[in-house]
Amino acid sequence: MSFTDKSCTEFVEALASKAPVPGGGGASALVGALGMALGSMVGSLTVGKPKFADVEADVQELMRKADALQKSLLGLVERDAEVFEPLSRAYGMPKETDEQKAEKARVMEACLRECCAVPLEIMQCCAEAIDLHESFAEKGTAIAISDVGCGVICCKAAMQSASLNVFINTKWMEDRAYAEEINTTANAMLDTYTAKADAIFADVDARFK
Amino acid sequence: MSFTDKSCTEFVEALASKAPVPGGGGASALVGALGMALGSMVGSLTVGKPKFADVEADVQELMRKADALQKSLLGLVERDAEVFEPLSRAYGMPKETDEQKAEKARVMEACLRECCAVPLEIMQCCAEAIDLHESFAEKGTAIAISDVGCGVICCKAAMQSASLNVFINTKWMEDRAYAEEINTTANAMLDTYTAKADAIFADVDARFK
Repeated sequence: MSFTDKSCTEFVEALASKAPVPGGGGASALVGALGMALGSMVGSLTVGKPKFADVEADVQELMRKADALQKSLLGLVERDAEVFEPLSRAYGMPKETDEQKAEKARVMEACLRECCAVPLEIMQCCAEAIDLHESFAEKGTAIAISDVGCGVICCKAAMQSASLNVFINTKWMEDRAYAEEINTTANAMLDTYTAKADAIFADVDARFK
Repeated sequence: MSFTDKSCTEFVEALASKAPVPGGGGASALVGALGMALGSMVGSLTVGKPKFADVEADVQELMRKADALQKSLLGLVERDAEVFEPLSRAYGMPKETDEQKAEKARVMEACLRECCAVPLEIMQCCAEAIDLHESFAEKGTAIAISDVGCGVICCKAAMQSASLNVFINTKWMEDRAYAEEINTTANAMLDTYTAKADAIFADVDARFK
């Protein structure tokens, strides 16, 4: 059974256990999917209403993009678990001879790249999700504006949480040029999108003050 | 079927739909439960290991508290949906006569108090969850320190997200003294705990730099 087919309670319990997966990466992807779904809800409450006829096509397009991102993020919950297993096996490889050491280093480096690529993709999905929230706030019905705020702040946390799972893997890479390239990409996304998410959240929050 | 018995995918899809529940409040509680579970995982990976024998009892106690909070937060996913239904019915009450207006106002005020109490309780659970993450970071195994960072930042987002669901209800209360009292409590929690969560996250993040 896939992790996203588990009930919410079962997923939470599996996360709390000592089982190696799901872990922080998978939880990040799920929180991102929950955040994106809150944005979509605003779209769902907007479309088909005469009052919003002039933005109907735009909102439908936003909803298609949001639905695709939501599916990608749920898929990344599974992917994160899949790539972790080979890394955990690689840690146990023998390193008694020089040949074994070299082979272990080679396998470890390949596994770290895989384990890093998944949370980086989660971050990229969250960046797109934050952009979509901005559009839902602009074009969607005001009656669900609090859900835009809830959604965007969840996507921000999902991105920050995923970033730790990028950095924990780049830290151990031997190819420092590659590791630094990934870190630069991740840090640039964090800089841009945590600020953007905070601005959208603050704008929603101000409407209730 | 309860919402937390739904699969993760079904919950995300229900959230994205135009159905009134689950909404931002329920999603906040689930994100809080996911965050707390990540803290518990650090405990699960710590207990029973000779290296951590001197903190075994402390970590066991933290895990008991975390498990109770996790269950409370999952319960609040359901509670949030339960209290929303009477409010949505109250909006539709007739207000043609003075008697009807007075009755509607009375029922609305009672419903707003209920709808406000649930996200406030979610915030309180998240505050305790953030405190527990601080303890897990101090006493738990360093091999899972990234999960403390992931967990605490999810609990922070859950608290912020729940706060919007407090403010959206206090805004419409007629009893302004009561509304302001709730707002003051919520804002004090936000001030203390978003800063605390950020400090814990930054401390974890710094270990990978």
